Amino acid sequence: MKIVLPVCFALCFLHAKAQSPDVYPPHWWVDMKWNKVQLLVRSTQADFNQADVRINYPGVTLDKIDRLENAHYYALDLTVAPGTKPGNVSIDFVRKGKTKSVTWALQPRRAGKGKAFAQGIDAGDFIYLLMPDRFSNGDVTNDHVAGMRDQTLNRDSIYHRHGGDLQGVIDHLDYLQGLGVTALWMTPVIENDMPNRTEHGYAMTNHYEIDPRFGGSDAYKKLSDELHKRGMRLVQDAVYNHAGLYHFTVQDKPMKDWLHEWPAYTNTNYRDGAWMDPHGTETDRKRMADGWFTPMMPDLNHENPYMANYLIQNALWSVEEFGVDAWRIDTYIYNGLEFMNRCNAALLEEYPKLHLFGETWVGSPLNQSYFMENNLIVPFKSNLPGVTDFQTAFNIAAALDNPNDGLNKYYTMLTHDFVYKDPMKLVTFLDNHDMNRFYTQVKEDVAKFRIGIGWLLTTRGIPQFYYGDEVLMKGATYPRDGWVRLDFPGGWKGDKKNAFTQENLTPQERETQAYVKALANYRKSSSAIKSGKLTQYVPKDNVYVYFRYDNDQTILCAVNLNGTDKSIQLSDYAERTKDFQGSKDVLTGKTSNGTLTLPAMTMTIVELTKQRNE
Amino acid sequence: MKIVLPVCFALCFLHAKAQSPDVYPPHWWVDMKWNKVQLLVRSTQADFNQADVRINYPGVTLDKIDRLENAHYYALDLTVAPGTKPGNVSIDFVRKGKTKSVTWALQPRRAGKGKAFAQGIDAGDFIYLLMPDRFSNGDVTNDHVAGMRDQTLNRDSIYHRHGGDLQGVIDHLDYLQGLGVTALWMTPVIENDMPNRTEHGYAMTNHYEIDPRFGGSDAYKKLSDELHKRGMRLVQDAVYNHAGLYHFTVQDKPMKDWLHEWPAYTNTNYRDGAWMDPHGTETDRKRMADGWFTPMMPDLNHENPYMANYLIQNALWSVEEFGVDAWRIDTYIYNGLEFMNRCNAALLEEYPKLHLFGETWVGSPLNQSYFMENNLIVPFKSNLPGVTDFQTAFNIAAALDNPNDGLNKYYTMLTHDFVYKDPMKLVTFLDNHDMNRFYTQVKEDVAKFRIGIGWLLTTRGIPQFYYGDEVLMKGATYPRDGWVRLDFPGGWKGDKKNAFTQENLTPQERETQAYVKALANYRKSSSAIKSGKLTQYVPKDNVYVYFRYDNDQTILCAVNLNGTDKSIQLSDYAERTKDFQGSKDVLTGKTSNGTLTLPAMTMTIVELTKQRNE
Repeated sequence: MKIVLPVCFALCFLHAKAQSPDVYPPHWWVDMKWNKVQLLVRSTQADFNQADVRINYPGVTLDKIDRLENAHYYALDLTVAPGTKPGNVSIDFVRKGKTKSVTWALQPRRAGKGKAFAQGIDAGDFIYLLMPDRFSNGDVTNDHVAGMRDQTLNRDSIYHRHGGDLQGVIDHLDYLQGLGVTALWMTPVIENDMPNRTEHGYAMTNHYEIDPRFGGSDAYKKLSDELHKRGMRLVQDAVYNHAGLYHFTVQDKPMKDWLHEWPAYTNTNYRDGAWMDPHGTETDRKRMADGWFTPMMPDLNHENPYMANYLIQNALWSVEEFGVDAWRIDTYIYNGLEFMNRCNAALLEEYPKLHLFGETWVGSPLNQSYFMENNLIVPFKSNLPGVTDFQTAFNIAAALDNPNDGLNKYYTMLTHDFVYKDPMKLVTFLDNHDMNRFYTQVKEDVAKFRIGIGWLLTTRGIPQFYYGDEVLMKGATYPRDGWVRLDFPGGWKGDKKNAFTQENLTPQERETQAYVKALANYRKSSSAIKSGKLTQYVPKDNVYVYFRYDNDQTILCAVNLNGTDKSIQLSDYAERTKDFQGSKDVLTGKTSNGTLTLPAMTMTIVELTKQRNE
Repeated sequence: MKIVLPVCFALCFLHAKAQSPDVYPPHWWVDMKWNKVQLLVRSTQADFNQADVRINYPGVTLDKIDRLENAHYYALDLTVAPGTKPGNVSIDFVRKGKTKSVTWALQPRRAGKGKAFAQGIDAGDFIYLLMPDRFSNGDVTNDHVAGMRDQTLNRDSIYHRHGGDLQGVIDHLDYLQGLGVTALWMTPVIENDMPNRTEHGYAMTNHYEIDPRFGGSDAYKKLSDELHKRGMRLVQDAVYNHAGLYHFTVQDKPMKDWLHEWPAYTNTNYRDGAWMDPHGTETDRKRMADGWFTPMMPDLNHENPYMANYLIQNALWSVEEFGVDAWRIDTYIYNGLEFMNRCNAALLEEYPKLHLFGETWVGSPLNQSYFMENNLIVPFKSNLPGVTDFQTAFNIAAALDNPNDGLNKYYTMLTHDFVYKDPMKLVTFLDNHDMNRFYTQVKEDVAKFRIGIGWLLTTRGIPQFYYGDEVLMKGATYPRDGWVRLDFPGGWKGDKKNAFTQENLTPQERETQAYVKALANYRKSSSAIKSGKLTQYVPKDNVYVYFRYDNDQTILCAVNLNGTDKSIQLSDYAERTKDFQGSKDVLTGKTSNGTLTLPAMTMTIVELTKQRNE
C-alpha cells in the first residue's frame, strides 16, 4: 500500500530544520566478531547524502559509501580491524571544501565480553513475562514525557498508559526472585512513540532508544545489572516483522523498497502453512510474509539488504549494550525466514550460548517444528534453537477442560517431540499477553489451575509464567485483549490489593501464590527437572503419570483429573521405579511406599526414595 | 494370556487321527528371487517331527531341518537354485527304515512373471472397496459350507453371513468398470472358519485357503483374471497383526512363542505414539504392538523368525498365486514395524511396482507419515510406500461440517504434505467399512455428499470409494459397525432396489450414481488429475480453490461451501491461470471466461482453455 502517512508528519519532515546527522547504530565495540558495520546515517538536510565522506581512525576503514534513494541517508560500510583501540571516530562530511563531522564511538566490549551475559536460558530457568506498563510504577516522574504522541495516563482504561516502568520492576526483583523466577521477559521496552495503543510495545519507533516512559536506557541497564547481580537473566523481546507507523524510517523511508508496500492495504493471511506447503503458491507465501500485521505496523522488507543489516546490527547491539541473555522473537513466522536464519546465525556467532526462541502460534508440533531446528528433511532448514511451545499450552488446557480425551491428546502431543532437534529448548507456558488468562481458561477452578502450574513446572522445556497468574489474575481477550493486560496488584502506590505484601489477597490467592513459590523454588534445586530426561506413560482412567529423572534423582509426577482419589502402584511403572522403594512429596514431605494415593483433581509430585519409608 | 482355547478343540486335535502332512506354502515357483523357502510342515501325528527328512530333486537342497517345540511341526529350509525345473518335489520322512512322502510342487511362474500383474496402483486409479459377503451373491451353492463353524445365513442380521461371494463380484465387474472403477479392494477373502462375526474376514484361519463360501481359490483366480482382462487391478487385504482364534497354528501352536501371550488378557492400548515417543516406555510400546486387537484375534509374534517367514512367504505366495497388484495392510501400526519393513522389502524386491499401503488410523500427518516413507530424521525409518490417508477423510468431513474453520484445517493438512516422501501414494477416501458412511457423516445432505466425491476424485493421492456410496447408502458404526456393512442393493436375487439396473432407485440415488460415474470416467482421461501436480490457494470466504495440472492440461477445482453463489476471477490465481483465457466445466461442458460462477454449496471442476470462449 501507499503508506498512510498522516499528512502533517510527512510535511513536517520535509520542512524540518536540518538536524545533526544521526548514526545507527549509534556506537559499536572493538573486538566484536561482527566487525563489518554498516552505518545508516541520516539528516533531514535536503541533499545530505551528496557530500564526500571520510573517516580517519586507526584500524577503521570506510569500505563503501552508499547514497540511498532518499538523499537524507547514507549507508556507510566500515571495517573495524582486530586490535583497533576504543575511541571516538569522526565521520566527516565534506562538501565544497566545508567539513561537517559527527562523532561515532567505538567502545570497549561490555564487561564480561559475552561471558557474563548472553549465557542463555535453559530448562533450569523459570521465566516471568510481564508488561512493563502494567507491572509497577516505580518512578512517577516519567509517567508523562513531553513531546511523545501518546499522552494518556489513565489506569481506568485498558488501552491507555498506566505508568508502569523499569524502576517498578527493579523495585520488585526480590519479590520475583523469592517467587522462584530466574529470568525476566518483558514485552518490548524499545521506544514506542505511537499515538495510541502503546501499552504493548510492539510498534517500535526507534530501535536504538529505550522508551523514556519506562526510564530510558539507564533504567534498562540498571535492571540488567540488578538481574545479573541476583544470578537472574534478561530476555529481550525482539520485533523484526514490523515497526510502528511512526518509526523514523517509515515516516522518512531511506529507499523505495524499505517496507513491503501493496497497491492497497493488505493484511497477512496468517497461514503459516504457506511457508512449507509443497502445493503452495508464491502469492500466499508473499501474503503471509509481506502482508501487514495491522495498518499501524508496516511490514519491514527483509530482502532489502540495508534493512536486513539495520535489524541484525540492532540485535547484536542490543545484546551487547544491555547484557541480554535470551532473545524472544515476536511473530517469528511472519518474518522472512531466510533473513531470520541470517540474523540468528549472526547472534549465535557472536554469542554462542544466547538462547533464541521465536513466537510460533501454530496448530501442531509438525508446523511448530518447521520454524526451529528440527528433524525434518525439508528444503528450508531453520537454525532457530527454540520456539514458544503453544502445543503445551493448548493441550494442558484441553486436558483440564475434557480429561477423557484431553489427556490422550497431551500424551500424543509429547510423543511427537521426536520432530524437534531438542524439545528441552521449547519455551512452555499456560498463557501470555495475547491469550485468555489461564485462570479464566480453567473457568476459575483453583484445583485445575494448580494442576496446570504443577504440570508446567515439571514437564520438559523452559517454563514461562505470566505476571499476576500467581494471584489468580483473570481476563479474556474477547472482546478486547486489554483485559488480559491489567495492572499487577500492589504495583501502584495506594493499590488496595497488594500481591507483593499479600495485603487484601483472598485465601485462594495467597495459597496459589505460595504454591507457585514453593514449587518454583523446589524446581531450582531439582536436577531431574532442570536437566533430566522425561518418561511418560500412556494415560489411563484420567490419570497421567510421567517421570523426570537423572542419575541423582527420580521424580514421579501424576495428574489425577478424576473427581475422586485414585491409587497407583509404583510397580506399575517399573521402567522408572524399579530401583526405588518409596516416595516423598516434594511439597508436603508426605511419604508413601509401594502405593501412592492421588487425591481427586490434583497434581502429585514426589521424589522416589531408595529406602522404604517407615 | 493363556490362549482361551475352547476345550473341545484342544482335545480334538490331540486325539485326531494323524493326517497326511500339510506343507505351507503348499507350493512355490522356480525362478523366484525369494528362493530360500522355509516350509512349515505339520501333521497331527504325535511324534511327527522325529523322522529324518530327505529331499532329492535336482536344484533343490534341504539346508536345515528344524524340529519345532511342538512335535507336530518341522520347519524345513530349502534352497531352489536358479535354473531348477518345475515339477513335484517329494519330501520324504524316514523313520525306522519306513518312508512316508508328501509331494510339494515347484511350479512355473505365473504367466507374466510379475510383469502382467503386481503392477501397482497409482493416482490414476479409482479403488472400489467392498465386503464380499455384502456385495452380491453370485453362487448360492456356496452359501452354506458343511463343516464350517459359522452356519448362519440371515440377511436380516447385520452380523450373520449374507451369502455374497466372488462370483457375485465377477458378475458385476462391468458395472464397476462402467462406474469408473479401475481397482478392486475387498475385505479379506482368506479362509475365516470362525464361529461368528465372519462377515469382515479379518480373523483368518488358514492363510493358504480362500474362503469356500466366497468360492475358494478358483473363484478368486477367476476374479483376478477377469479384472486383468478389463485392465483393472486387484488389491489384496493382508493381515499380519493377528489371526483368528481358530487358526490351525493358534489351536496347535508350533512353538511356545508363536503368539504374543500375556499373563492375563491384554488389549492393545491403541496408542501409535508409543512407537515414536522419545519419552516413551518399552511397556507402552509392547502393549501397543503385542496387545491383542480383540480376544478372538490372537496377536502374532513377528519376532519369532518362523512366524515371520510364514507371513512373508504367504505374502509373496499370494501375489504370485492370485496375480495381486496392490497390497493393503490391515492395522499396520499394530504390527512389529521392523518385521513389516522386512516383509515390505521382500515384496518390493520380488515385485518392484507392487503398491503397498498400510492402514494408519491416526490423528495427524506427522504420525501418519511416521509409518510410511517420509522426510523425517528418525531412528526407525519405514520403507512402506503408502498409507491410508485418514487425514483427508477427517478434514473433508470437518470442512463440510464447519466450513469456516474446516476449510482452513483441510488447507493446513495439505500444507503438511512435505512430510511424506510422496503424498501421491497416499490412498485417500471418505469412508470405509469401519467408519460412518459418508452420506451419514454429511447428515444426508446430497449437495455436501457430492462435494465430497468431487473433492476425493480431484485432490492428490489414490482415491478409494466404499461400495454403495454411489447410491447414497447410509449407516453409522454406533452402536454397531454392522450398520455400515449392509448389502449392496441388487446384489441378491429378488432385491427390490437394484443399483446395478437403477430399478427403484430414488432420483437422488440415480443422480449421485451418475455423478460418480461421470466424474470417475472423466478422471480416467485426465492426465492432470491422474499424474499432475497440485497447487492450492489459501481458502477465502468459505471458498477453496486448487488446481491439478501438467504440461497438457490445467484443471481448476473450487469448493464453494456458502449457501449462496460466489464468483471468482481467474486472474486472482495467476500463478496457474496466466496462460489461459477461459474454462469449460468437465461435467456440464459449460464455458466461462475470466469470471467463474460457483453455485451455492457445490464443487466446480473446470478445464482451463487457452482461448476465450465465445
